[in-house]
Amino acid sequence: MNEEAESYLRTKERGFLATMGKEGPTVIPVCFAYESGKIYSAIDRKPKSGRELARVKNIEKNPRVAFILDTYSDDWRRLSYLLVHGKASLVRDPSEEGRAKELLLSKYPQYRWLGLDGSRTIRVTIESLKFWKFQPRG
Amino acid sequence: MNEEAESYLRTKERGFLATMGKEGPTVIPVCFAYESGKIYSAIDRKPKSGRELARVKNIEKNPRVAFILDTYSDDWRRLSYLLVHGKASLVRDPSEEGRAKELLLSKYPQYRWLGLDGSRTIRVTIESLKFWKFQPRG
Repeated sequence: MNEEAESYLRTKERGFLATMGKEGPTVIPVCFAYESGKIYSAIDRKPKSGRELARVKNIEKNPRVAFILDTYSDDWRRLSYLLVHGKASLVRDPSEEGRAKELLLSKYPQYRWLGLDGSRTIRVTIESLKFWKFQPRG
Repeated sequence: MNEEAESYLRTKERGFLATMGKEGPTVIPVCFAYESGKIYSAIDRKPKSGRELARVKNIEKNPRVAFILDTYSDDWRRLSYLLVHGKASLVRDPSEEGRAKELLLSKYPQYRWLGLDGSRTIRVTIESLKFWKFQPRG
């Protein structure tokens, strides 16, 4: 992984996670933490209503996801993005989940007042990365 | 469409377009213009190499797409997003294409120096909209 990609994964505050639904894709903004080729994001506990989040239903049927981080600027010479493709699943191992929450709490002070007790964690295992920077057309 | 959704579509500078590939979704940042239930974005002319953009190949196989606009803030009480689901295709009608380019040129001064001659246009016809705002958990 090049330095720019790693810096994006370590410092960007929110990305967008795209998953495949039955008929088409969906995409959602997510806060996340990165460690060792894995991207973690928190979601609420399973709702009592039983109505599961679309992204959870989607990754259970098709774990392939895309995740994107970008820099937007009115100066388009500064545009860049990092596009990740990978596989997502709910984290089931308590020690991995504990570590993911530790990373999220340390990156986002907001989680300290919101709390992550009872929340679940989605892990995206990175399979490929593409870093893009604006290039003027010749 | 409610006012917040319409204001997002008129004023946000870039969104993210998710499409379905053969095996999984992909997502890309796009600048866009909105008019009458349609979201327009410009893409380069068909490359001479014949290697078409992923998003074009994807929408030709499956026109269903998701498109998202959001507001991020360190103050999570201000988080919001607008999620659109719809159908995408390349614009083939010259007068619709001309109008789309007019809208893009008027929204983005950057296109005036980059130029839109020879570029193609993707149209997303909105089928559903969801506007979300942060709500603290009880």
